[in-house]
Amino acid sequence: MTNDVFERGLAIRKDVLGAEFVEKSFAAADDFNRPMQELVTEYCWGAVWGREDLSRKTRSMLNLAMISCLNRPHELKMHVKGALKNGVNRDEIREIFMQVAIYAGIPAGVDSFRIAREAFAEVDSAKG
Amino acid sequence: MTNDVFERGLAIRKDVLGAEFVEKSFAAADDFNRPMQELVTEYCWGAVWGREDLSRKTRSMLNLAMISCLNRPHELKMHVKGALKNGVNRDEIREIFMQVAIYAGIPAGVDSFRIAREAFAEVDSAKG
Amino acid sequence: MTNDVFERGLAIRKDVLGAEFVEKSFAAADDFNRPMQELVTEYCWGAVWGREDLSRKTRSMLNLAMISCLNRPHELKMHVKGALKNGVNRDEIREIFMQVAIYAGIPAGVDSFRIAREAFAEVDSAKG
Amino acid sequence: MTNDVFERGLAIRKDVLGAEFVEKSFAAADDFNRPMQELVTEYCWGAVWGREDLSRKTRSMLNLAMISCLNRPHELKMHVKGALKNGVNRDEIREIFMQVAIYAGIPAGVDSFRIAREAFAEVDSAKG
Amino acid sequence: MTNDVFERGLAIRKDVLGAEFVEKSFAAADDFNRPMQELVTEYCWGAVWGREDLSRKTRSMLNLAMISCLNRPHELKMHVKGALKNGVNRDEIREIFMQVAIYAGIPAGVDSFRIAREAFAEVDSAKG
Amino acid sequence: MTNDVFERGLAIRKDVLGAEFVEKSFAAADDFNRPMQELVTEYCWGAVWGREDLSRKTRSMLNLAMISCLNRPHELKMHVKGALKNGVNRDEIREIFMQVAIYAGIPAGVDSFRIAREAFAEVDSAKG
Repeated sequence: MTNDVFERGLAIRKDVLGAEFVEKSFAAADDFNRPMQELVTEYCWGAVWGREDLSRKTRSMLNLAMISCLNRPHELKMHVKGALKNGVNRDEIREIFMQVAIYAGIPAGVDSFRIAREAFAEVDSAKG
Repeated sequence: MTNDVFERGLAIRKDVLGAEFVEKSFAAADDFNRPMQELVTEYCWGAVWGREDLSRKTRSMLNLAMISCLNRPHELKMHVKGALKNGVNRDEIREIFMQVAIYAGIPAGVDSFRIAREAFAEVDSAKG
Repeated sequence: MTNDVFERGLAIRKDVLGAEFVEKSFAAADDFNRPMQELVTEYCWGAVWGREDLSRKTRSMLNLAMISCLNRPHELKMHVKGALKNGVNRDEIREIFMQVAIYAGIPAGVDSFRIAREAFAEVDSAKG
Repeated sequence: MTNDVFERGLAIRKDVLGAEFVEKSFAAADDFNRPMQELVTEYCWGAVWGREDLSRKTRSMLNLAMISCLNRPHELKMHVKGALKNGVNRDEIREIFMQVAIYAGIPAGVDSFRIAREAFAEVDSAKG
Repeated sequence: MTNDVFERGLAIRKDVLGAEFVEKSFAAADDFNRPMQELVTEYCWGAVWGREDLSRKTRSMLNLAMISCLNRPHELKMHVKGALKNGVNRDEIREIFMQVAIYAGIPAGVDSFRIAREAFAEVDSAKG
Repeated sequence: MTNDVFERGLAIRKDVLGAEFVEKSFAAADDFNRPMQELVTEYCWGAVWGREDLSRKTRSMLNLAMISCLNRPHELKMHVKGALKNGVNRDEIREIFMQVAIYAGIPAGVDSFRIAREAFAEVDSAKG
């Protein structure tokens, strides 16, 4: 599965989640999960993130709001880090998660704040 | 319940959802739902929408994504119309709901597109 | 499927949802949905509603909160009417749905208030 | 967007949902929802439904279970009809929705039974 | 943000979740999450928990049911402990989670029982 | 609570989840969770899994799809192992979770793949 959309998706995915993480994911893939890695890269990162009309910063903001509502902590932490790379600052992340608290409920908001603080701590500690 | 946060919320709510709609909601309220109308106005529209650090346009975009995930068609249609007022254009709404389709699943995306088209038709027909 | 638990469930279900409604449901059942009618009656109404340690009033209050979160409007309207029969008054229903608005988010709260008002209108009109 | 995966998806989508319905969807598409129609056709129907290792009958069964849990009545009705075309019989649909009732809760089960009966009635009436 | 509703909320929150926990939360707050701490205290604990018409015991019972449905284990454990403080006994908690199992599905029920047992163990061990 | 349906459920539950696990669950049960253990065994495993018209393999496949959508990782891991016992192979599990990714969204799919790999690793290591 190598085509233009896949290649565009691979480049964007590396930009947002980090080249090392993405390369490790493909290297660790086996027959069980390789088709999933390819699907995610081509369709999610190529066919949708690769579209114009919304900036990467806006797409990251939407993802933080959605993944909070969908209640997926592993993915949320990864996308908090990706959002920082895409230029969403910590004040904006606070505002997004306060809006989550209103629309998806206080427990969704509280969980998202805790995960964001974990993500920030990991980012700060990686920077030394 | 009249205080600064409530008043700020009332003004923003009227801007986004339309003054006529909001006034009708309060006029139609009885002892059963008046406390809810007041809570929504103060807490949602005053204490959160009234905060700085995110533009109204961005808040509308987040709402479209979240309310799609939360699967609330009545609220979604109202916020599609509010988003148009806040400067989100139809191309951007398409992009938001395609991103919903990827992150919350195809049925969430398909439902949101159908509701958006209903909202657009109502807006276009109101304009004559 | 007639046994003690089923019979107890049938009696409670008739008390809460109305004997006429329940009898009509069984009369209208065919090979497709009769096993489901029986499962619901025995398992939901007999094995759980039939337990002691919580009053029917409390069980109705829990149901209003849960079915709002689960986003099932048909079932919610039926259980609003059932709650009134079980002694939950309209002020208490308002409080439950305001708590829903905080914990499950504003759209869940707004939808539940709208459905409650529809249920009240139907109950009031049936009384003449 | 014409490529092998899209073409394969288009053929499967027509088989399962009906050629007339799919052609009407594309004919009615405008700049707003055409990209979504293309994404769904290529990604959902081509890249996933087009994969081997699961029969169409099994994929339909999974969809009924999932779309019940996801609480999307429009999509569920369409996929009940699609499941009948893919060889899932009414007894099997009953079993799927009873399992939904246990794992996703009684309200999810009850809603799914009601929608299935509506779908059956429409199918039976179309047959004359 | 000090006003009557906030102060009432702060007192209730300390009563239910423990003064030490709440004070530690505020002491640990920074510019990122302080606004969220304030929002939760004022609106959730002041504007809603502070209302009359439902006892704290009933509000705790509703929360256990809702937070189980919303699938938020951290918040659920905290509210199991809060419920014990508000006079909900362990038999009643069992009944609530059996009703969750019926309405939100077996996996929701099983998860909630596991979390309750963890909360009980922590409470028992804190007592020595 | 010993009756035919309970006994049938107990046997099926032991077949699918392992006799040792089920016996340990009952042995560890106390007054708090024994009624839940009994309810699950009789209704979930006896009254539904014990029905004909769907094979155990098909029921396991439905469960993997549903429990992914319902976002319950503990239960999902247990049912991945149960599915292997019921004859669902790893290629089929991959296909189920790719279909989850499309219908319930990428984060649901990614989480399910990660949990499946953990389950496979535990199964492989138990085999030595």
